Amino acid sequence: MNKNQFVPQIPYGTRDLLLREAKQKRIVEGSLAELFSRWGYDEVVTPTFEYMETLTVGTGSDMQQHVFKFFDKNNRIMALKPDMTTPIARVAATRLKETPLPLRLFYLTNVFRHEQAQAGRQCEFYQAGVELLGAPGPAADAEVVALAVEAMLEAGLTNFQIGLGQVDFINGIMAESGLTPEHKQQVKYAMVTRDLVGLGEILAQSGLSKAAQELLRQIPVLHGHEDMLNHAYQLVSNDLSRRALDNLADIHRLLTGYGVDRYVNFDLGIIRDFDYYTGMVFEGYTPGLGFPLCGGGRYDNMLASFGVANPATGFALGIERVLLALERQGIGVSVRGKDVYIAWAEGKLPEAIEAANQCRKEGRRAELALASESKASAETVIAEGYEELIYIE
Amino acid sequence: MNKNQFVPQIPYGTRDLLLREAKQKRIVEGSLAELFSRWGYDEVVTPTFEYMETLTVGTGSDMQQHVFKFFDKNNRIMALKPDMTTPIARVAATRLKETPLPLRLFYLTNVFRHEQAQAGRQCEFYQAGVELLGAPGPAADAEVVALAVEAMLEAGLTNFQIGLGQVDFINGIMAESGLTPEHKQQVKYAMVTRDLVGLGEILAQSGLSKAAQELLRQIPVLHGHEDMLNHAYQLVSNDLSRRALDNLADIHRLLTGYGVDRYVNFDLGIIRDFDYYTGMVFEGYTPGLGFPLCGGGRYDNMLASFGVANPATGFALGIERVLLALERQGIGVSVRGKDVYIAWAEGKLPEAIEAANQCRKEGRRAELALASESKASAETVIAEGYEELIYIE
Repeated sequence: MNKNQFVPQIPYGTRDLLLREAKQKRIVEGSLAELFSRWGYDEVVTPTFEYMETLTVGTGSDMQQHVFKFFDKNNRIMALKPDMTTPIARVAATRLKETPLPLRLFYLTNVFRHEQAQAGRQCEFYQAGVELLGAPGPAADAEVVALAVEAMLEAGLTNFQIGLGQVDFINGIMAESGLTPEHKQQVKYAMVTRDLVGLGEILAQSGLSKAAQELLRQIPVLHGHEDMLNHAYQLVSNDLSRRALDNLADIHRLLTGYGVDRYVNFDLGIIRDFDYYTGMVFEGYTPGLGFPLCGGGRYDNMLASFGVANPATGFALGIERVLLALERQGIGVSVRGKDVYIAWAEGKLPEAIEAANQCRKEGRRAELALASESKASAETVIAEGYEELIYIE
Repeated sequence: MNKNQFVPQIPYGTRDLLLREAKQKRIVEGSLAELFSRWGYDEVVTPTFEYMETLTVGTGSDMQQHVFKFFDKNNRIMALKPDMTTPIARVAATRLKETPLPLRLFYLTNVFRHEQAQAGRQCEFYQAGVELLGAPGPAADAEVVALAVEAMLEAGLTNFQIGLGQVDFINGIMAESGLTPEHKQQVKYAMVTRDLVGLGEILAQSGLSKAAQELLRQIPVLHGHEDMLNHAYQLVSNDLSRRALDNLADIHRLLTGYGVDRYVNFDLGIIRDFDYYTGMVFEGYTPGLGFPLCGGGRYDNMLASFGVANPATGFALGIERVLLALERQGIGVSVRGKDVYIAWAEGKLPEAIEAANQCRKEGRRAELALASESKASAETVIAEGYEELIYIE
């Protein structure tokens, strides 16, 4: 009896996607796969877990505390993949090592991170994304940003903005500033978390000149369009920062060619929460959602850890976040509802099966009753939302 | 330097699906999702892991040794899901508890089992399947078997057979035989593993009458069509076994109505490797593949463990096994290849982007060069298999 009272629970930080949600996920993922393919990207499916050492080499130690770990039968430490960048780097360094560059790869997968769970932030969640390997320069970066815009449009979103930054703008200022490595880390952390008060406090204790403090304090609010970029040129004199601004201007010019520039603005305060970005970085936002829909950037050093020194750029898009944004913005994804219900009088199941076969051949969604019933009973069933009743008597 | 020489490995028993394989997987899964939907099934997506206690209640202790386990942050034991039957039972017992029956659910997911890895048998593998909950009787069983046949046809297979058995045929004989519980288990194990020599030895030591031994020894070779079923009626006199044969005859009659009877034969020796089947069981085979493509059956007791006492029937199909069978049988899944390559002379990238936009709008797969090149160089690239070169100069 006790056994019969067992009420199973779903693991912390995970969700079931049922009915409409599962349908929407399949529709959105299917159309993204089509989109990525039209842009010349091929899908990659990798295992759910990787050896921990692969992950450590790929992403450094920061990620480790957020990873789900376990031992395999040989006592090696395994990790549920926290993103697809490292698995794709592993594939690029092994089975695809001899494939001509550039490599265009996409994925649609679940990833895993220990998090405080909330709407839009789960421990297991779904990502779509692309990695473009072996191509330096703004043409590749613009392709990836334009594809991120197209992915959000394809998913059904219309009201979103991409903020485009460049980590070398900040790196140049930091190098010039004479900040200690500890202070640099603290400043970066405050910028990543958009903690402007904390940033002010760190700078006040940094011993930097007022002018240098003021410059660093301004970075998080440097967002806008071409005029902001021109203003930023006035603020910096070091080469690294100026080349970063040139790079952003080049990328933006190409985005205009792609016809997506109206979805993009500059945001020099964007530093993504991974250390490995080396150039352009971006995040996509939509009103009413307190976290990015997508994010990505250029990471030219990571693949070298796996013995293939290739530049790389890419992005990932959160599927549940897209679905949440669509819902909050009242944008319907058209999902197929109930269609035909086929009911039958005693002894008429074979004829009902024939009718079901016929409907399905015509591409209709046909649900076949599994016991005989009266026409009156069948009519109450179709009142639940079917378009048509076929009653065989 | 040492760091640069790191060559990452893929975890034991797992595979990457790349390029053609990943495309085939997506195409097959997409068409199965469409098929299941036409038959009135809705997709369910559940987490990758479950609490171990949920799994234990659902599938009993046999499965536990094959499961990947780990601790979550609260030190609860988690298990990577070894199949979808338990997660779907959990969903049916919780969020879908009030939904009118029957419930028709489908899934396309990866599952995890510790195994000796070989082609077609991996520790992480992909399954498609359906569960039909809340419907007793042959109409539901026939629907599930017919849908398994349609799924293999939809995937592109033509040369396969489904063996249809009924666990109560053997249960009736065993109950009548007077075998000890230990001997019963040994006999079942020998039948599951198709170990006819072992079966003979167990029976010789069983103390059963020669006639009873002969009957049990015959079970594994009782396969064929209606004539075999008629023969089987002659062999047994107990009610349970005879009702099992009646049930198979009823299901088969409906399968004829579905037009799939030519893919189905009776195989009374089929006992699936789970203890929870309670009625009809089946497995699908194709030449050249040493393990079933699909399998399933009726399991009427399992949901009661979760507090919802509903009958249930369903099946699962191995996606990699289908892909392997298609490959070995030389059946092509038509996957889209390389299409347009767009190259450009120095300074012509914006025009090339416009050309790419246009091709993609037309639904073509357009790969854009990421650096300027000469027309001669572009022509060597398209020799790699593109259908068309667009060169912008």
